[in-house]
Amino acid sequence: MLGTHKLGACLPTFASCADRYCLTGYGRGGKTMDEMLDMAKQVQGLDGLELVGNWHINDANMKKVTSLFKERGLAIPMIVPDLWTQEKWGRGSLASRDTKIRAEAVAEVKKCMDWAAEVGCQFVDVWPGQDGFDYSFQADFTDAWKHLRDGVAACAAHTSRVKVLVEYKLKEPRTHCFISSAAKTILLVQGIANVGCLLDVGHSLAAGENVAEAAALLAQYNLLDYVHLNDNYRGWDDDMIVSSVHIPEFLELAYWLRKVGYKGWLTLDIFPYRELKVEAATESFEWVRTLFECVEAKGLAAIGAVIDRGEGTEAVRLVRELLRGKA
Amino acid sequence: MLGTHKLGACLPTFASCADRYCLTGYGRGGKTMDEMLDMAKQVQGLDGLELVGNWHINDANMKKVTSLFKERGLAIPMIVPDLWTQEKWGRGSLASRDTKIRAEAVAEVKKCMDWAAEVGCQFVDVWPGQDGFDYSFQADFTDAWKHLRDGVAACAAHTSRVKVLVEYKLKEPRTHCFISSAAKTILLVQGIANVGCLLDVGHSLAAGENVAEAAALLAQYNLLDYVHLNDNYRGWDDDMIVSSVHIPEFLELAYWLRKVGYKGWLTLDIFPYRELKVEAATESFEWVRTLFECVEAKGLAAIGAVIDRGEGTEAVRLVRELLRGKA
Amino acid sequence: MLGTHKLGACLPTFASCADRYCLTGYGRGGKTMDEMLDMAKQVQGLDGLELVGNWHINDANMKKVTSLFKERGLAIPMIVPDLWTQEKWGRGSLASRDTKIRAEAVAEVKKCMDWAAEVGCQFVDVWPGQDGFDYSFQADFTDAWKHLRDGVAACAAHTSRVKVLVEYKLKEPRTHCFISSAAKTILLVQGIANVGCLLDVGHSLAAGENVAEAAALLAQYNLLDYVHLNDNYRGWDDDMIVSSVHIPEFLELAYWLRKVGYKGWLTLDIFPYRELKVEAATESFEWVRTLFECVEAKGLAAIGAVIDRGEGTEAVRLVRELLRGKA
Amino acid sequence: MLGTHKLGACLPTFASCADRYCLTGYGRGGKTMDEMLDMAKQVQGLDGLELVGNWHINDANMKKVTSLFKERGLAIPMIVPDLWTQEKWGRGSLASRDTKIRAEAVAEVKKCMDWAAEVGCQFVDVWPGQDGFDYSFQADFTDAWKHLRDGVAACAAHTSRVKVLVEYKLKEPRTHCFISSAAKTILLVQGIANVGCLLDVGHSLAAGENVAEAAALLAQYNLLDYVHLNDNYRGWDDDMIVSSVHIPEFLELAYWLRKVGYKGWLTLDIFPYRELKVEAATESFEWVRTLFECVEAKGLAAIGAVIDRGEGTEAVRLVRELLRGKA
Repeated sequence: MLGTHKLGACLPTFASCADRYCLTGYGRGGKTMDEMLDMAKQVQGLDGLELVGNWHINDANMKKVTSLFKERGLAIPMIVPDLWTQEKWGRGSLASRDTKIRAEAVAEVKKCMDWAAEVGCQFVDVWPGQDGFDYSFQADFTDAWKHLRDGVAACAAHTSRVKVLVEYKLKEPRTHCFISSAAKTILLVQGIANVGCLLDVGHSLAAGENVAEAAALLAQYNLLDYVHLNDNYRGWDDDMIVSSVHIPEFLELAYWLRKVGYKGWLTLDIFPYRELKVEAATESFEWVRTLFECVEAKGLAAIGAVIDRGEGTEAVRLVRELLRGKA
Repeated sequence: MLGTHKLGACLPTFASCADRYCLTGYGRGGKTMDEMLDMAKQVQGLDGLELVGNWHINDANMKKVTSLFKERGLAIPMIVPDLWTQEKWGRGSLASRDTKIRAEAVAEVKKCMDWAAEVGCQFVDVWPGQDGFDYSFQADFTDAWKHLRDGVAACAAHTSRVKVLVEYKLKEPRTHCFISSAAKTILLVQGIANVGCLLDVGHSLAAGENVAEAAALLAQYNLLDYVHLNDNYRGWDDDMIVSSVHIPEFLELAYWLRKVGYKGWLTLDIFPYRELKVEAATESFEWVRTLFECVEAKGLAAIGAVIDRGEGTEAVRLVRELLRGKA
Repeated sequence: MLGTHKLGACLPTFASCADRYCLTGYGRGGKTMDEMLDMAKQVQGLDGLELVGNWHINDANMKKVTSLFKERGLAIPMIVPDLWTQEKWGRGSLASRDTKIRAEAVAEVKKCMDWAAEVGCQFVDVWPGQDGFDYSFQADFTDAWKHLRDGVAACAAHTSRVKVLVEYKLKEPRTHCFISSAAKTILLVQGIANVGCLLDVGHSLAAGENVAEAAALLAQYNLLDYVHLNDNYRGWDDDMIVSSVHIPEFLELAYWLRKVGYKGWLTLDIFPYRELKVEAATESFEWVRTLFECVEAKGLAAIGAVIDRGEGTEAVRLVRELLRGKA
Repeated sequence: MLGTHKLGACLPTFASCADRYCLTGYGRGGKTMDEMLDMAKQVQGLDGLELVGNWHINDANMKKVTSLFKERGLAIPMIVPDLWTQEKWGRGSLASRDTKIRAEAVAEVKKCMDWAAEVGCQFVDVWPGQDGFDYSFQADFTDAWKHLRDGVAACAAHTSRVKVLVEYKLKEPRTHCFISSAAKTILLVQGIANVGCLLDVGHSLAAGENVAEAAALLAQYNLLDYVHLNDNYRGWDDDMIVSSVHIPEFLELAYWLRKVGYKGWLTLDIFPYRELKVEAATESFEWVRTLFECVEAKGLAAIGAVIDRGEGTEAVRLVRELLRGKA
């Protein structure tokens, strides 16, 4: 916990972390869920873990999984339908040209919603990472947009017990994904009930957004439901330790999360390829605590006053003082 | 003319083209409007020129300017309110913290709308380039968004004889501009009557968009009113000759402009710093003609069939065949 | 063959093409080398295939492999030591902090040199992709540089029958790789005998280089020994079909390869994740042929004359004319 | 002063700071040198100011300028030959196709060396910003390289009383500059006596370098003679306040400057367009002091030990502890 925020992580943080070169991963593979949950419990402050549908939770293991979590006092804040790890989604899921694939994708999300409802999880995270294109003249943007809207709407109508969150990303695994920015996500889900957004900080950075601005925009449209934390160098979704690269941007995000009254989960979506997993998650939370401490030590009003004046130099000095504690 | 499209250019194309190092410009400075119009007339196919309010057109010279254009058979497709060349706009125009500056910005746009109405020009181009921020903690995103909406609405309500087009750009002159993408522009203008969008291809490329997708998205929302053509290397608004860098992307754009039925102006917004101005504009139009020729030689249906199949390899082959004429 | 150039591909082009999400790959997995060679033979003009040491060629299968290649009339232009697919290289190979790992990396390269000598292959490709860093304060740049030089020198001294080529890349799998540009590669190998460079076009693009300039620079230092072809959007090593994105840059490269007298292999290093493998390689070669045809139709002298004048507009017109055949 | 470092700024920091839109600048224009020096004196710790040849110092004003500096106890650490503010350099200076222009560029540098010698300034800064290209097929890379080497050598041979420093930059004002990275600069100047390098941090960031690595590389070749400080968002040379964006990178640079024993000037090359000039420079120096304080509080040995272990998580924790003072 961190104030009103629960702190989470994605379960694969504790897995072997593969890339396209080292397909077995840089860490130890073959861990059981027991082992990964035990690792997770070593991360101070961690309240829960996201699960990928089918891989981590399914009809067969539901009871077992629930009890593993209960034993350790861990929550399941999110179930993520698998729309991206199988060859069949390779050319698209919700926006596939193939009616059958689209239907399967919607069914996959609904199945996860059912599991979520059963384990008392509030959200599913719809990230249509395979829905996009690689080359010019490869996509019908209009059709894809319609399919995505229809698919999201079909999922959202399934049950009001679980909310459908849409997660945007500029690219990867496709060189271009359709749902690429906060603003596009807002446009996509406008007018559909029971839908919200998941802001992944690293996706926002890689999309060239100022992430605090993205959070403020989503909040204006009442769509800031959930936040993923990680960092990168903006050229790719490096899934690095929180605030390891973008310190002023993370401080500004912490301020805006407070200002817009965000009270939800702060969940790590890091990929500590070469790092010890528990340590990487722990340091990420240390940074999260530091960011909010910095903001709170100064106070929202004092920071707001700097923003109101809009002087560049004063804004830079503010960051220095927040970090160095000379408020 | 190019089919249904009129071909235009921004008047400063024919001026001296300065940058922050060479403030007097790389070309000959001090040209009169006569001289610049004469240069423009040498560009085969050119139908009209955009003017910047106050600088190129104002109460004092209105009659003179009108007659200079009439003599040469040139249209004025757009008047661009100057919200960016004076120190007073440096910290913002329509989104300024200063009520007085905001009012002046709105007044500036309205004045241009009046001039536009008088000379029979259909559009003003609102590009709030100074509205943004440079540093973290320098902007109140929520206030800025509200000011921008209010300002655009106030302008749009001024007269229905001239439509207000909003032009987005990711950055420059600010390191971050508020209206940065097609999707954000759509969100901003939603529900305001008499407002449309201007798609600047270079701005779209520099914003990390696929420009054909941006055009299709704007068209879906009935907001694709006007197109600026230029190219760049995506890191900056280099304002280069059309299609000099992004050939597949420009071909795809030409196809989508046809597909969504765009019939408006195709206007150069190039900055030929070191090039002969007439030649640079001429070559830009040669490329524009080439792009549409390629698309038309193959035909919309045949291209659409490739898109429908969504095969990457086939899409690449299509580009090669479009260019090489082996349809 | 294409004039003096032999045309190659990396064997994994024909494998299943996995990424970090879809670890089993988007294509059919589990192919035998027989099957992959048969696929390769369907690619018109293909003269040979690069092999990865241990994975594709090793002491046990050497004879078998040689005969599979011989049967099909295929050459082995390159053996690539595996310094990147195993967890043990995760924190570095030739530049590892660990003396033992460094020694193993050198041994791995030498082993590949022996295999290369045995099968009549002229080169090994040393790509130390894991040698780099992810975070600030994670690397001792001076030590790493020394280790890399020492390692490359130790390999190069092993046998003069096989030349050691160093391949640079800006990033991936590390967020920062040490050997990141053409110029750094030249610096690294200066003064070491029996060493050259491999220019991977995609790596060059992603490093922010103009690839023709990189080729010219390497050639000036007599270090342009081998060329890998693929394309990307500059933010990542997308390993796409040749010339699918950067057409003017590829044309310029074709010209400069001719101008500096490069006569070596042109080998595809593409990763056709979602494409049919044979078709993607075939289309890549079609583009390669097109590029050189365009250059040759105009002639080196005529192109050189345009370059000599250095006019931007004329350079753009040249690209249009090369492509459209109006020389 | 900051330990062994003298602190400087470029004189135009205190001028009006124009860009291509607002050509008269966002600050007050028309300041006299007196006024600008008086402003500079208000910046605590400032030891000297760089001057641009001809503009700020020339035969006519030499005595006057010297006495203005002497009166205020300010040094002139650098004279920068103007190879970029005049139309005549627009297509190149030292690497121009035009023999006459090349000779003029060399003469310009020599003239500045003479002035430098006369005022006791140790360096001239050769930044050939106009030497590059904008379009494919516009540059003869081989010729350009030769011209640049010859030009730099000719300058360096002029007098040993003043050292010629070469400053690299990836782009701007050209879309591609020839001398674009630390490694290319080293290659260029190899073997020429009386030549060194100027590392501009912002140029390094915009070139995609890790700036600490660039500093270490230059130091290995004994070419780290002078450092320019400023920050940006990596897509452009934004010339922002020091450490306003890249905090971990600046901390790492401070460590490496200490480690390689750099003792030279730390000079601001910032462009505070919309900021109060004195305040922006003052805050930049506050950050410089903070960076070195952080490094020294922890100590070189302790930081070096973290680097030696090469653990990502530990590196991130180090940055947090350096900033927050929990060493």
